[in-house]
Amino acid sequence: MDGEVKIPDFYVVLVGPKYSGNVGAVARAMMNFDFKSLYLVNPCALDDVCYARAMHAKNILDNAQIFSTFEEATQNLDYLVATSSIQYVKDKKHLREPVMLDDVADKIYEVDGKVGLVFGREDYGLFNNEIAACDIMVRIPTSDSYLSLNLSHAVSLVLYALYSRKEYDVKEKRVIGRVEKEKLYEFFSILLERINYPDHKKENTEIMFRRIMGRAMPSKWEYHTFMGVIRKAIDTIQKNSKK
Amino acid sequence: MDGEVKIPDFYVVLVGPKYSGNVGAVARAMMNFDFKSLYLVNPCALDDVCYARAMHAKNILDNAQIFSTFEEATQNLDYLVATSSIQYVKDKKHLREPVMLDDVADKIYEVDGKVGLVFGREDYGLFNNEIAACDIMVRIPTSDSYLSLNLSHAVSLVLYALYSRKEYDVKEKRVIGRVEKEKLYEFFSILLERINYPDHKKENTEIMFRRIMGRAMPSKWEYHTFMGVIRKAIDTIQKNSKK
Repeated sequence: MDGEVKIPDFYVVLVGPKYSGNVGAVARAMMNFDFKSLYLVNPCALDDVCYARAMHAKNILDNAQIFSTFEEATQNLDYLVATSSIQYVKDKKHLREPVMLDDVADKIYEVDGKVGLVFGREDYGLFNNEIAACDIMVRIPTSDSYLSLNLSHAVSLVLYALYSRKEYDVKEKRVIGRVEKEKLYEFFSILLERINYPDHKKENTEIMFRRIMGRAMPSKWEYHTFMGVIRKAIDTIQKNSKK
Repeated sequence: MDGEVKIPDFYVVLVGPKYSGNVGAVARAMMNFDFKSLYLVNPCALDDVCYARAMHAKNILDNAQIFSTFEEATQNLDYLVATSSIQYVKDKKHLREPVMLDDVADKIYEVDGKVGLVFGREDYGLFNNEIAACDIMVRIPTSDSYLSLNLSHAVSLVLYALYSRKEYDVKEKRVIGRVEKEKLYEFFSILLERINYPDHKKENTEIMFRRIMGRAMPSKWEYHTFMGVIRKAIDTIQKNSKK
């Protein structure tokens, strides 16, 4: 639109926050860095402590949307960024294969759509199924001696990283719709079935594919082209097997 | 010294903190980012709330040095960095002429000596005479709609900016060998042939695949897994066509 830079809509999604002070501090940090939309999944009560910590950002709390499940909160978001200061565990390495915060922040403005910045519980972080549903896993580098950040600090660091890059020039936009993405992942799964991919490796490989695509942030054209290849592979296998 | 990088000694100096929870949160953030020395000027009592918020960083609180004046706290420090999220006032602009956080962080490791990172009171920030005593004034860019950061958040942002530059060279890289990459692209081309992909689209699609992989920067494991899938697809097509 006349060279106007379109910025993705960002949504801060807190999953199961337990301490109302943290939620308030998150609201304040959001206002500090010009973020407006707060989604809360199954949160603690937004009590006086919460509002006191929010300081001038009470509006953000008043307008926060509350959901009872992760799925409800994220269903209308196009691209989900999971955040963790926790190092990935060896046996789940594909699931938690992280990208460093600064690298994500450098690229995120290429996304066009609704971007959810997802933060987990103070104690347990995000569950594996929640992480699996996200497109990319961000790691905020922290010291080995104490990896786990306070929730509102983690949010601040991510929002600042995005805010401080907002001015940067964005080249070509890569548009990705949720529906298209899900379709691509579905076809990839069908392909795995048709090639008799070992069952015990299937889930890992599906998640790996999501992660690769999540990091690559393909354009619409790239999605469709890739989809075409996978589809044709499936068809060819089907046709041949009927011979 | 044998190419060893000498890192300045950093001291986090909180001037007149009023809320013990903030001091605890600062201690935690310090441990998260490998900072050890906390100087407190005329602080509030380090009560239970303070220790609770510090979580695993109680040691930093126990070892914090307490001073009654700014001068005492800073007299042995070589280089003082004042921090503010507040915009400079016109008539004091020389005093408060700030340098952006990221620019300071890029250069701070050139300093050799004891560096004090000085943070002001939650309500008034630093007084003019305190700012005047500092060598540089850092500004953390924030939104015009709400400039003032929570104290512990401001500390976190500064410490992270320093920490993330220290780690820059050693942070996890996803290194993949040229040979492996070429092998993957080769197999992708073979797959296209086997599924009778239209000739006139082939080159574009091959380039698209390279671009996606290039942006995704897959790990070795991801390359091998992806390669496995493509290989199995090729084999399945081959086998079926012989039936």
